[in-house]
Amino acid sequence: MQAQEITLASRPEGMPTQANFGLKQVELPALKPGEFLVKNLWMSVDPYMRGRMIDRESYIAPFALGEVLEGGAIGEVIESNHDGFPVGSKVSSMKGWRSHYVTDGTDHTLLPDTPLSESHFLGVMGMPGMTAWTGLNRIAQLKEGETLFVSAASGAVGSVACQLGLLMGAKVVASVGSDEKAEALKAMGIEQVINYKTTPNLSQALKDTAPQGVDVYFENVGGEHLAAALDNMNDHGRIAVCGMIAQYNDTKPTPGPSNLAYIIMKKLRVEGFIVFEHWQHYGEFAKQMGQWLASGKVKAEQTIYEGLDNAPAAFIGLFEGKNRGKMVVKL
Amino acid sequence: MQAQEITLASRPEGMPTQANFGLKQVELPALKPGEFLVKNLWMSVDPYMRGRMIDRESYIAPFALGEVLEGGAIGEVIESNHDGFPVGSKVSSMKGWRSHYVTDGTDHTLLPDTPLSESHFLGVMGMPGMTAWTGLNRIAQLKEGETLFVSAASGAVGSVACQLGLLMGAKVVASVGSDEKAEALKAMGIEQVINYKTTPNLSQALKDTAPQGVDVYFENVGGEHLAAALDNMNDHGRIAVCGMIAQYNDTKPTPGPSNLAYIIMKKLRVEGFIVFEHWQHYGEFAKQMGQWLASGKVKAEQTIYEGLDNAPAAFIGLFEGKNRGKMVVKL
Repeated sequence: MQAQEITLASRPEGMPTQANFGLKQVELPALKPGEFLVKNLWMSVDPYMRGRMIDRESYIAPFALGEVLEGGAIGEVIESNHDGFPVGSKVSSMKGWRSHYVTDGTDHTLLPDTPLSESHFLGVMGMPGMTAWTGLNRIAQLKEGETLFVSAASGAVGSVACQLGLLMGAKVVASVGSDEKAEALKAMGIEQVINYKTTPNLSQALKDTAPQGVDVYFENVGGEHLAAALDNMNDHGRIAVCGMIAQYNDTKPTPGPSNLAYIIMKKLRVEGFIVFEHWQHYGEFAKQMGQWLASGKVKAEQTIYEGLDNAPAAFIGLFEGKNRGKMVVKL
Repeated sequence: MQAQEITLASRPEGMPTQANFGLKQVELPALKPGEFLVKNLWMSVDPYMRGRMIDRESYIAPFALGEVLEGGAIGEVIESNHDGFPVGSKVSSMKGWRSHYVTDGTDHTLLPDTPLSESHFLGVMGMPGMTAWTGLNRIAQLKEGETLFVSAASGAVGSVACQLGLLMGAKVVASVGSDEKAEALKAMGIEQVINYKTTPNLSQALKDTAPQGVDVYFENVGGEHLAAALDNMNDHGRIAVCGMIAQYNDTKPTPGPSNLAYIIMKKLRVEGFIVFEHWQHYGEFAKQMGQWLASGKVKAEQTIYEGLDNAPAAFIGLFEGKNRGKMVVKL
C-alpha cells in the first residue's frame, strides 16, 4: 500500500512558500495485530503550525526537516486488526498531511454519530471552536452586557468567538481584512465590523465603534490590533491572548505596542493560553456547541481546498487572509 | 498662620525640572468647630505622581496648574477643634507638598503607637510596602520555591518586594542601576543582583543568574526589563505590573518589547494593579509587616531629603535613581 506524505523540505524564512514543502511516496507496512489502516478524508491547516516550522523550544516540538508534517485530521478506517476501531469508523487524529497511515490507535478518537460534516470536527467542533470557547469562558470570563472585541474575526477561531460572544450576551465588535469578510460576519449577526485594511486609524475606528469601551479583547493578531485594544480597554478589562498571526512570519523582531502602560492604569489582565491544556473541558464545550450548531445558533463557515497536494497552498493562504471560517483540505 | 505650599507651575515635558514647581505662601483660615491644624513632619515623593502631572484621564485626577500638589504625608496636630484628632496626635494623609494645613479630618488616619519612625508609614508600612505585598500575594500569587525577578529592586516598592520574596520562600533575582545599590541589597540577603547599567545584555544576564527560569516578575520598569523577563519566564509565569518608570518621562511613544508572543507560548498572565483598589487588605498587611519589621526580618531603607523646598529635587531624583529604598522629605 502506497501513501503520499507532505514533508517539511526547508524551514520558511518569513512567509512560507511552496518550496518549503515536499511530497513523498511511502510504502506502508502490513498491519500487525492491534493495528488499523486509516484513509484521511480531511486535514486541517492552522496558523500555530507556522511556529512548529521554526527550530526552537516551545510548548510543542518543532517539525523535523524532511519528515512528514503533523496536524489535525479526520479519517476513515479502511482495514483493521483493532476491535475498538472497526472498518468504516471515523477517527480524529493529529496524523494530517498524509493520505493514509497505519496506527495502533494511540491519540485517536472515534467521532460520534452526527448529522454534521466530519470536517467540522477540525473547526467549530474541534480545536478552533474549543479555543474560542476556552478564551471567552475560562480565560477572559466574558460577562453578559460587556463589550467584546475580536481580531481576525472571520478566521476559524475568531468567527466562533464572535458568535459565542453574542450568545453570551455581549456586544461584539469584530475586525477583519476585507469587505467581503465583513459582509459575511454581518450575515451571522455581528453588526459592528471594522475592515482594518481600509481604516486609517484602527484605534480611532474602535473608539468610534465602541464608545463605551472594550471589556474583553480576544487577541489573534498582535501589533496594531493590540495597541488599538489597549487604547480602548475599560478598567479591569481582560485580554485573552490566543495568537499573534501578524508576527508569525516576521524575519526580524517587530516592536510591541508603545501603550503597554495601560495595563497598569486600567488594571488589565492579559493572559495567554494554549487550548490543549484545557482539553479536559472538551466534553462540556462539545455538548453546548453541538446544540448551538443543531439549532442554527452558531454557523460554521469553511474554506475548502481540494487534494493533498493543495495543502501547502491552503496553509500559505492562512497568512494571506484567503480563508473565511475554518480552512480545511479535502483529501 | 502662614503655610508654604509647592505648586505645579508648569507641566513637565520629559524629565521634570525645578522650573515645573512653584512655591506659594498662603494664609491659613482660623479653625472652625470640628477642624484641626496639622504641621507636616514628613512627605512622600513617588513615581506615580509623574502621571498626575499630565493633563489626561487616568485612574486618578491630574494635578491642576498653579495649585498645590498632593501626596502622602505624616503630620502632627498642633491645634484642634476635633475630639478625634487631639493636639499631639500624628496623622497620615494625602496632604503632602505643604508645611501646614487646616482640615476637618476627611481621609485622615491616626497613626498607631509604634517604636518606628513615623516616616515608615510613607514607605514600608505605607503605600509602597502595601504595593509590594499586594503584587506578590494578590496579583502574582508567588509560591514557595519559585523564582522571583524584581526590577527597580532598590526602590521603595522593589526593596520590599525582594525581602518579602525571600520571606515567602522564593529565590530572588534583583535588578538595580548601580553597584552601590547592589551591595545594599546583598546586605539585606538578596544574593542575586544584576546591575543593568553595566550589563551588555540584560536578558542573557538574567538567564545566567536564573538558569531555572523566572516564575514571577514584579514589573516596575518596562522596556528592556520586560523584554528580558519575557525571554526568561517559565510556563504559567505571572507578571505583576506595578509600574513602568522607564517610560514616565518619555516625550514620544517608546515601542514595547518584540517578544510579546511569549505570553501565548508560555501561557503567561500579565496583570496590572493599583494598590488603592486593594486597601481593604491593609490591616492584614500591616499586621504582618509590623511583625517583620519588629523582628528585623524586613529592613526599611530610606533616602531622606530635608526641607519642603527640596521636595522637587527629591521627586526629580526618583527618575535619576538617587534613592535607595523609600524617598521621603523631612519638613
